[in-house]
Amino acid sequence: MTPPYTIISADAHAGLPCEEYRPYLDSRFLAQFDEFLAQRRANRDEQMVLNYDYITNWETTHEEGLRGAYDPAQRDKEMDADGVAAEVIFPDADAITGMESPPFGAGLSAGMIDDAELAFAGARAHNRFLVELCAGSPERRAGVGLVPICHDVARAVSEIEWLADKPGIGGIMIPTMWRDHLPYNDPAYDPVWAACQAAALPVHTHSGEAPREEMNEFIGIYLAEVVFWTHRPIAHLLFSGAFERFPGLKFVVTEGASYWVADMKWKWDQYFGGGHTTKKMAALMKGILSKLPSEYFGTNIFVGASTMSKEEIRRRHTIGCDVAMWGTDYPHPEGTWPHTIARLRSDFGDVPVEDTRRLLGETAARCYGFDLDALRPIAARIGPTPDDLGQDVGLVTSPEEIRRAEWWKDEYQVAWNG
Amino acid sequence: MTPPYTIISADAHAGLPCEEYRPYLDSRFLAQFDEFLAQRRANRDEQMVLNYDYITNWETTHEEGLRGAYDPAQRDKEMDADGVAAEVIFPDADAITGMESPPFGAGLSAGMIDDAELAFAGARAHNRFLVELCAGSPERRAGVGLVPICHDVARAVSEIEWLADKPGIGGIMIPTMWRDHLPYNDPAYDPVWAACQAAALPVHTHSGEAPREEMNEFIGIYLAEVVFWTHRPIAHLLFSGAFERFPGLKFVVTEGASYWVADMKWKWDQYFGGGHTTKKMAALMKGILSKLPSEYFGTNIFVGASTMSKEEIRRRHTIGCDVAMWGTDYPHPEGTWPHTIARLRSDFGDVPVEDTRRLLGETAARCYGFDLDALRPIAARIGPTPDDLGQDVGLVTSPEEIRRAEWWKDEYQVAWNG
Repeated sequence: MTPPYTIISADAHAGLPCEEYRPYLDSRFLAQFDEFLAQRRANRDEQMVLNYDYITNWETTHEEGLRGAYDPAQRDKEMDADGVAAEVIFPDADAITGMESPPFGAGLSAGMIDDAELAFAGARAHNRFLVELCAGSPERRAGVGLVPICHDVARAVSEIEWLADKPGIGGIMIPTMWRDHLPYNDPAYDPVWAACQAAALPVHTHSGEAPREEMNEFIGIYLAEVVFWTHRPIAHLLFSGAFERFPGLKFVVTEGASYWVADMKWKWDQYFGGGHTTKKMAALMKGILSKLPSEYFGTNIFVGASTMSKEEIRRRHTIGCDVAMWGTDYPHPEGTWPHTIARLRSDFGDVPVEDTRRLLGETAARCYGFDLDALRPIAARIGPTPDDLGQDVGLVTSPEEIRRAEWWKDEYQVAWNG
Repeated sequence: MTPPYTIISADAHAGLPCEEYRPYLDSRFLAQFDEFLAQRRANRDEQMVLNYDYITNWETTHEEGLRGAYDPAQRDKEMDADGVAAEVIFPDADAITGMESPPFGAGLSAGMIDDAELAFAGARAHNRFLVELCAGSPERRAGVGLVPICHDVARAVSEIEWLADKPGIGGIMIPTMWRDHLPYNDPAYDPVWAACQAAALPVHTHSGEAPREEMNEFIGIYLAEVVFWTHRPIAHLLFSGAFERFPGLKFVVTEGASYWVADMKWKWDQYFGGGHTTKKMAALMKGILSKLPSEYFGTNIFVGASTMSKEEIRRRHTIGCDVAMWGTDYPHPEGTWPHTIARLRSDFGDVPVEDTRRLLGETAARCYGFDLDALRPIAARIGPTPDDLGQDVGLVTSPEEIRRAEWWKDEYQVAWNG
């Protein structure tokens, strides 16, 4: 019998109803917190006018399950029913009206906060809640703490050190955009990377932010650009040598899709390892890279690909089954919950079991350090089997298929000559 | 006998040696011009220290041919020998040491100029030279005038109107980055788009600029990002409705590669025409789009793909043979000159003739309004034949192959419901 999948969702969200962050917030920020709450309520009222039917339908149909945003027992129940053994947890559980966001918007839009005090206060309030949420079943959780590194590196390091030894905490999230602060290629951030390497906490950006001020409210521009702004830090870390100075540093881009990894690996390998330009470019990379750019994917660079499209699944050997990590996006309505197994059956039916295991859990286990032995009994109880996904267990991926997926290595005779 | 190809290079460069722009410049800027020249010379000296062998080898080997940068007779001779019937001409002929750039860097880095007076003065100097260069054989030229639209829309419109009736002028180039000025989605630019539509002058961005101030001199970050910054205006024009307000407006992204068009069409069609999200998103696009995003490619949006990679040629039906336009990049060393026919033979050997004709000339003819009848005698004299490219004239592309190339249309049941 083929054992069931140990599914680790690399993208999930948790958050208290905004009001309930009050006891987690340092009391000197309570006046500003009341202003924040008033803004959030006004925003919800506006959303309700625009989308009343959609919002009320979603919220009433899933009333019980949505409580898992902050109630760990309910959360485990939803995960069990969905076949998910473990998960990586980001903030902002309410994706529609923003009513489960950390104080001052310190979650997915943290880069928007100008005031360092508010940025750290909001992050800390969420982190206190998150530590509580994850403490009960830490083997099933990788809670991602919020660290607004742009405002104050020393204080960011303290926050990372505070998070480091908490059970069930598995990473940190930094603002997606650095805006007017130092870009992430700056060595000023080295203490942050050092602290994350020491604590084995992967660093994340998560989609959400983009320079809206340049977009005049045109939603199409936002959608066209948001993926770039989410993955932009990869280039700034890689090509400034951060992964050479901190070989244990892991950087994860979450819910920013994964299709772009395919061309990124090709172009970056071609620039720095292709044909006759190799030696010249490799010389420019002295001390910055020690191998081909694509080789940092799956060791230092990972992608929390969320609910992958069929095309991304077809591209899995180019993107890398050791790079992309599937996720439910629970409890967001654009995710797969509460129909995860049906969706997996639809999308992975023709994928070999070995590739599926990596995309659905093994790569996340390696990235975050989940204990697969501890998760196995849970998976045995709840996990879908290859048969549940309609898979043919005889299907295997040939080495030739994997080799052809990285077609540029032959075509440009790519080699590292640094 | 299969007739020869009428090759139109959609990417070429021309420019005077910097010093020789002096008589083309309004005299009140001569003091600043001397400063600019001093900076350029210092930059050349620096480059020579770093790359003496490479630069002197290139410049001495090609001494005669490089004079085509500013000498139209020499230019025609180089084109003839290379099999190129006509060309689209951008500024900055010296890609290595920058010694053939318009005053004040008003060419490929125009967005860097803070002072509106200098921006327009540099552009005007180059435009005067360009009009002279193109006047002799206008059927072979589409000179791209420089128009720094971010500084002053009314003045930009005057410059466009001045360019509009000059023989051999075929487009305008705007700064690739708007920096602190209004983004290109702003209706403040409508008079510019109106003037370009009226004059049938395609608007261009050309690769070169990127936010270097965020890159701390790390060349890898620049290479990783420059394509995004070059094509970024497409989304800002399309999703602000510029192509609906100005249906005759054409926008061309040049020397920023073309591989990204494939995923761009997929994702944008999926966002705005895919499955169950269709109606909601199409409603948001009311008055902004009137068809699927991919359908603006080849009518309003074109790509000056320069020396396409083999992978881009393989993706030609996804990118669109009616979208991508091949180019030599003459006289830049990273281009195909003076070995264009050999390169075409290597890259297009297994491509059907019909697809090749479109990529090498017909799409550019349609985009820029070249007179193919006028070019035919030139092509008959100089153009390579399918046989010269080693092609099998029996090869044809099936309609099924073209349909499968736009795979997302079936997979997402893409349809415009606006």
